[in-house]
Amino acid sequence: MADDILDRLQATITTRRGGEAADSYTASLFAKGRARIAQKLGEEAIETVIAATAGDDAKIVPEAADLLYHLLVLLADAGLTLDDVRAELARREGVSGHDEKHARS
Amino acid sequence: MADDILDRLQATITTRRGGEAADSYTASLFAKGRARIAQKLGEEAIETVIAATAGDDAKIVPEAADLLYHLLVLLADAGLTLDDVRAELARREGVSGHDEKHARS
Amino acid sequence: MADDILDRLQATITTRRGGEAADSYTASLFAKGRARIAQKLGEEAIETVIAATAGDDAKIVPEAADLLYHLLVLLADAGLTLDDVRAELARREGVSGHDEKHARS
Amino acid sequence: MADDILDRLQATITTRRGGEAADSYTASLFAKGRARIAQKLGEEAIETVIAATAGDDAKIVPEAADLLYHLLVLLADAGLTLDDVRAELARREGVSGHDEKHARS
Repeated sequence: MADDILDRLQATITTRRGGEAADSYTASLFAKGRARIAQKLGEEAIETVIAATAGDDAKIVPEAADLLYHLLVLLADAGLTLDDVRAELARREGVSGHDEKHARS
Repeated sequence: MADDILDRLQATITTRRGGEAADSYTASLFAKGRARIAQKLGEEAIETVIAATAGDDAKIVPEAADLLYHLLVLLADAGLTLDDVRAELARREGVSGHDEKHARS
Repeated sequence: MADDILDRLQATITTRRGGEAADSYTASLFAKGRARIAQKLGEEAIETVIAATAGDDAKIVPEAADLLYHLLVLLADAGLTLDDVRAELARREGVSGHDEKHARS
Repeated sequence: MADDILDRLQATITTRRGGEAADSYTASLFAKGRARIAQKLGEEAIETVIAATAGDDAKIVPEAADLLYHLLVLLADAGLTLDDVRAELARREGVSGHDEKHARS
């Protein structure tokens, strides 16, 4: 898994915590704090929704990349990792979505 | 990479396209179409934002899992894959976020 | 202003606070609390965004009505009123949007 | 109703359509088009959600003002008015939210 760009990106993001805000966009996000990171995640989700709804499919991949990046920053800010999310998805494997939804509501 | 749950989940999602809506939540989402898939992605993003902002960190992982799952469905609906997003993120590697943001605006 | 449906709706919403959740949708929202009210506002905003982006103009008015309704509930939950928002908009009148944005950033 | 700041603001917004983008923020929004207006509405909704969830109540009114302003711009872009939304809300008056939700689903 070490070769997965998602994990490599996450490792880079984690090293930016506590770094100088002027030196990287990621460090500046951590410096602004949780609410600002959540806001950026929400904004990128809106842009993904708009690209998808407008049928602007060429924009879906760059927007999805922005969304994933900000999700990794949010996870890191909470001391969590993509592996935590993978573990949750693995746990759900074999449980049908209809049942899974029902179990949570 | 074949062992990554994300890719395994994506493979499962792809096989649901064209399946019976009653048989799986994923098939029912594809049947409802692009706008509905985008709506669900947006809703899961809102829930992630709220969990993160309310400091309800125990909910971040399940919400992030929901968000990622719906992102994979959206990508599949557009004939795209997580590898397309990985390629975009790899392309950006080494480009600083400050530069990357500037290049796009 | 007393005849404005917006204020009449707000008055109705306010009387629902502390009411029985089973008796009205509004009372059930208040019972679920702030995070749930904010979530519904976010969801209605996503639906408005999708209707507008998909060019589904016939859906814009009903979605905008849902959005406004949930905004009034959110305001009421915080002890605020539409008049507070009107006062803020009046305060900004005459200040150009470009200047207004600049002043806040 | 002519004295309601909401209608006055809407009248101002309508006169900005087709105006020079450099002259006003509103004209620049119209020039960027529907997707961009919807994106701004979505972003302001996210900010309202975050202010409400973080318990940052002092920010709710300014964020709600931003949200309402962008909703008026979106309506104007589709040739709609706040009175159309008022009419929809008036139509729903007397219909309980539980019934109203049920009727639409």
